[in-house]
Amino acid sequence: MPIVEFVPRSDQLCWTFGGIAPVMMVDPGTTMKVWTEDAFSGKLRHASDSFFDVVPAGQPNPQTGPFFVNGAMPGDTLAIHFHSIEPSRDWGVSASVPWFGGMTSTIRDPTLQPALPERIWIYQVDRRARSVLFEARDSDHRIALPLAPMLGTVGLAPAMREVRSSLVPDDHGGNMDTPEMRAGTTCFLGVNVEGGLFSVGDGHYRQGEGEACGSAVEGAMDVLLTVELLRHRSTPWPRLENDEWIMSVGSGRPLDSAWRVAMHDMITWVAQETGLSDGDAYQLVSQVALAPIANVVDPNYTVVVKVPKAVLSRVQPYGGWHSQARRLVDDPA
Amino acid sequence: MPIVEFVPRSDQLCWTFGGIAPVMMVDPGTTMKVWTEDAFSGKLRHASDSFFDVVPAGQPNPQTGPFFVNGAMPGDTLAIHFHSIEPSRDWGVSASVPWFGGMTSTIRDPTLQPALPERIWIYQVDRRARSVLFEARDSDHRIALPLAPMLGTVGLAPAMREVRSSLVPDDHGGNMDTPEMRAGTTCFLGVNVEGGLFSVGDGHYRQGEGEACGSAVEGAMDVLLTVELLRHRSTPWPRLENDEWIMSVGSGRPLDSAWRVAMHDMITWVAQETGLSDGDAYQLVSQVALAPIANVVDPNYTVVVKVPKAVLSRVQPYGGWHSQARRLVDDPA
Amino acid sequence: MPIVEFVPRSDQLCWTFGGIAPVMMVDPGTTMKVWTEDAFSGKLRHASDSFFDVVPAGQPNPQTGPFFVNGAMPGDTLAIHFHSIEPSRDWGVSASVPWFGGMTSTIRDPTLQPALPERIWIYQVDRRARSVLFEARDSDHRIALPLAPMLGTVGLAPAMREVRSSLVPDDHGGNMDTPEMRAGTTCFLGVNVEGGLFSVGDGHYRQGEGEACGSAVEGAMDVLLTVELLRHRSTPWPRLENDEWIMSVGSGRPLDSAWRVAMHDMITWVAQETGLSDGDAYQLVSQVALAPIANVVDPNYTVVVKVPKAVLSRVQPYGGWHSQARRLVDDPA
Amino acid sequence: MPIVEFVPRSDQLCWTFGGIAPVMMVDPGTTMKVWTEDAFSGKLRHASDSFFDVVPAGQPNPQTGPFFVNGAMPGDTLAIHFHSIEPSRDWGVSASVPWFGGMTSTIRDPTLQPALPERIWIYQVDRRARSVLFEARDSDHRIALPLAPMLGTVGLAPAMREVRSSLVPDDHGGNMDTPEMRAGTTCFLGVNVEGGLFSVGDGHYRQGEGEACGSAVEGAMDVLLTVELLRHRSTPWPRLENDEWIMSVGSGRPLDSAWRVAMHDMITWVAQETGLSDGDAYQLVSQVALAPIANVVDPNYTVVVKVPKAVLSRVQPYGGWHSQARRLVDDPA
Repeated sequence: MPIVEFVPRSDQLCWTFGGIAPVMMVDPGTTMKVWTEDAFSGKLRHASDSFFDVVPAGQPNPQTGPFFVNGAMPGDTLAIHFHSIEPSRDWGVSASVPWFGGMTSTIRDPTLQPALPERIWIYQVDRRARSVLFEARDSDHRIALPLAPMLGTVGLAPAMREVRSSLVPDDHGGNMDTPEMRAGTTCFLGVNVEGGLFSVGDGHYRQGEGEACGSAVEGAMDVLLTVELLRHRSTPWPRLENDEWIMSVGSGRPLDSAWRVAMHDMITWVAQETGLSDGDAYQLVSQVALAPIANVVDPNYTVVVKVPKAVLSRVQPYGGWHSQARRLVDDPA
Repeated sequence: MPIVEFVPRSDQLCWTFGGIAPVMMVDPGTTMKVWTEDAFSGKLRHASDSFFDVVPAGQPNPQTGPFFVNGAMPGDTLAIHFHSIEPSRDWGVSASVPWFGGMTSTIRDPTLQPALPERIWIYQVDRRARSVLFEARDSDHRIALPLAPMLGTVGLAPAMREVRSSLVPDDHGGNMDTPEMRAGTTCFLGVNVEGGLFSVGDGHYRQGEGEACGSAVEGAMDVLLTVELLRHRSTPWPRLENDEWIMSVGSGRPLDSAWRVAMHDMITWVAQETGLSDGDAYQLVSQVALAPIANVVDPNYTVVVKVPKAVLSRVQPYGGWHSQARRLVDDPA
Repeated sequence: MPIVEFVPRSDQLCWTFGGIAPVMMVDPGTTMKVWTEDAFSGKLRHASDSFFDVVPAGQPNPQTGPFFVNGAMPGDTLAIHFHSIEPSRDWGVSASVPWFGGMTSTIRDPTLQPALPERIWIYQVDRRARSVLFEARDSDHRIALPLAPMLGTVGLAPAMREVRSSLVPDDHGGNMDTPEMRAGTTCFLGVNVEGGLFSVGDGHYRQGEGEACGSAVEGAMDVLLTVELLRHRSTPWPRLENDEWIMSVGSGRPLDSAWRVAMHDMITWVAQETGLSDGDAYQLVSQVALAPIANVVDPNYTVVVKVPKAVLSRVQPYGGWHSQARRLVDDPA
Repeated sequence: MPIVEFVPRSDQLCWTFGGIAPVMMVDPGTTMKVWTEDAFSGKLRHASDSFFDVVPAGQPNPQTGPFFVNGAMPGDTLAIHFHSIEPSRDWGVSASVPWFGGMTSTIRDPTLQPALPERIWIYQVDRRARSVLFEARDSDHRIALPLAPMLGTVGLAPAMREVRSSLVPDDHGGNMDTPEMRAGTTCFLGVNVEGGLFSVGDGHYRQGEGEACGSAVEGAMDVLLTVELLRHRSTPWPRLENDEWIMSVGSGRPLDSAWRVAMHDMITWVAQETGLSDGDAYQLVSQVALAPIANVVDPNYTVVVKVPKAVLSRVQPYGGWHSQARRLVDDPA
């Protein structure tokens, strides 16, 4: 299978969903190998660096894209399967930035308290052990943590003529920051504008649920993906599928709105796939769903609601495209 | 080891934490076998029953207790280890009750829309297969779901002279409705009044995260537990421990407040146990925590934040009492 | 008209709604002159005092009561008309207490930031000018502010066997902290337990909407009120009436829940009083309501929704009892 | 004084802030007479019309603009003074649209309940009596309500390269829906892009606080305004000034975030204008602020915090420009 490669030059990075011209046009079914920069544009490299010094204002979270998918029209769905997501550097970085994060007051929930001090942590990657090394700043603790690569941001151009910052997750996808966006997963997104215009970025070498301090172990990534166009099939909110689970991803504020959106989408999706009434699907999903938090730090918060396919007679949503995509690449690694 | 047994008469059930005389006094270290009624007082038995007809007003979610632990004083912690939690009936029940639940407007978030109709589901328990049977109401779908017994409600008398309904989760524990409250888990709760006055109840044969429809597969339980008194050790919010994880349980509204409470407790707990600074603990927990939602339907919502002990050098919080409790009973089943 | 007087001894103050024996039984229709202590039990007297030093733990916001109203039963309404609410001291006090207030993280929305420092402000009362004097702590600014006396807390014993701290506002009334609770206003509250058991307290010499710093200009009060029993008339959430407005008072978290409760109550109340359909009442109230925030600092937040009686054909809710109560006392001052 | 007039052709209406070319360039200090279409593009004219039939998808809330102000650069402030805002039609319209509004579940807080039915109300304007006529749909009630014209939407292009729907209020202004945006008021907005690019629209012949049903008495307007450029003066969130009050306007979700933003802006603004410390300003504003809710229905909710200039020694913020603007037009009517 031919693979389209794209490594953005630094002047090709983008910081929004919508509002920018595509960097490339691709046909449905294309497998792509793309490179993504880290959320700090690769400029936060030492524990002594300062976010505000090195990251240009208004340029957080650069994305690779957007890619125009030939033939995609509003009302269609783009399916993006991630064959592999692997660190392209041997170090990652995390930062606690003043007025951003889950354990501080923020510009949207301001207080009169002093800010937490800025703090940077550099993580070394051990590819053989598949781990990243946490090194404490205030003591000599060192703890190896499992490598668990994922993409924080996958999205399309929004509806309603809007252009959203790459920091924002919403119904167009975007900065959802869920650890579920890993290799072996398919992401389904509803198309709002011609071509769909998808971008990916914000690689995380690992991330806890909630992304509490405001950033994960951020790192550049090599990503192997296949994008498919599912015509005349709408997808109101982002959905994920892997071999064991189907997932709905809701974003909003407060966190209950994110959960409510995801749960509502899952119930109506399950009803549609299984033939259960909405009431019965409500009951069934209530007893089997998991509901891991994704992020509680971005402009919208995100919750994933997931249901095991095992209790749904192994449903094959979207015509079973996920299962097909799994077989497209022989050895993703 | 002697085991104290207690099966409440129907006139001994209670519906609050605080405000009632203890049914029994027990010494620290006592192992108890208690029985808990289901959340509908065992009266919702057929799919054709109506909650409002059969459950007396003001009597939802009956508890077994309260038990006065000799010597417990404010500033202490009660540790309750659950050796086993097993169904005592061969059926469970779930209900969607008007103006209660996660996919409806409620008395605390009212709208002018019509209510969802009341709906009851009866689940048969297959003890050998360790499953419960979902039977759709509007079609002939039947799906066996794994049995996963847990207690929705574990709590003490609250602080500030308050008495809270058994429907409410808060810093005194109560109706947290987390699937983590299962056999093999220890629950730590801060003592607010002399004797602590703990109660348990609200058995669930299984429950999805969020308890979306407002009830789990509710069922009466046989519970084997040991209660211990940890003197001069305070616990600000409920904490759980099992062999692999330590967990903080936050409750509040909106859901972000519940998460924030749990995350803050976990960070300060990890800092205390490991010697990391608060800043380093913030970073570490951000990268390793899971954050499953517990409930989004009770008067307060609940979130669990959990960290694997494996990345904390196998910490033994509370003097390692959990590990000791694991060995107290030879064969819990 | 005979007037019942009650000035609580310091050992008669109470800190909860529910859970305590009445200090007095009164007949429906009784006019009472009662004295209320300030929220700090009169112990915070100098700018150099510390809240944590002088206010006993667990004893914030002392109430005067509870009063048992003879004949009051669940399903009835108590109406309390305030003829006058006047400062009984020539000084008031306000405090910014760590982890409490609207411009700080709190125990229910904790962060890792340092606390704001504790700060006390003493206000001198000028009775002739009817003003209180703000004196800045960090400069020599002095600003006279209009005296605007009100009661922060008016409530009954709660339902569901609960006992709530006097810091909490909810459907039983309690610590609503709205400037609308002033002389000339009638407060309607639904009875949950025999006798109703009403208490009043938390006098404010003035308060901004929101009570942002966590306390108003707190002060002891002389209160002249008449309490009436309205049989077989339920009141789901607290309601207020003065000569120009009817008001619904909602409490909850987040603030939108408080608003939603108050707005829903107002729409159904207006429909009931006017004969408009719910849909038409929704439309009318949408165009005429004011929605001032009451508090954003208590365990529940509070919003008032108010509609001018002028657009409701001068409705006389609750049988016109407010208008009657206005004429009961010749010269309240 | 020369007055620039602009009446948009229907193909000149716009539905976003940002993302579109200016319709006109104006110099600082220009007085303009502009016409604004109503939120339904003037197409909802009869009680029997349907929103979804007559309003094109994606075209709610058309704006007049954007206007490029010569010389405006990021870091500056645009001040827009409204001399007059007057109905240009003799009828207005309000609608309750399914899944939109404060007393229904919505796409961001979905439930499984049926929707409220769509409902339209047409209001006749009586210019001489300065009233609008509410006519009930389900009965023959008719109530004249005072005319109180205002603009729901005033805003600039957003920061961070974003483009936002005209339905959204945020730090760029936009769909704030506060009744304070009336004749005699100045609106201050921080410039994010060259020229500022301000638009106005969404006239309301009157609106209750909260805009509960999702729309006010919507109507086309004739607006007389003067726009000024205040160089090198930043404004983080929208601010208003009239002869008696200064106001900060916060938007966000949940409603407490909107309040917190507005209160924080007001405290720091008062500190800056008066020389009070932040702590003293926190105390003073806590005791004197009003906090009327603006909207609880848009993608962000909005709260106004207002402080009387009388207690601030008649501050003249922004160099007293509001007072100057008041004198620019002799007879606005």
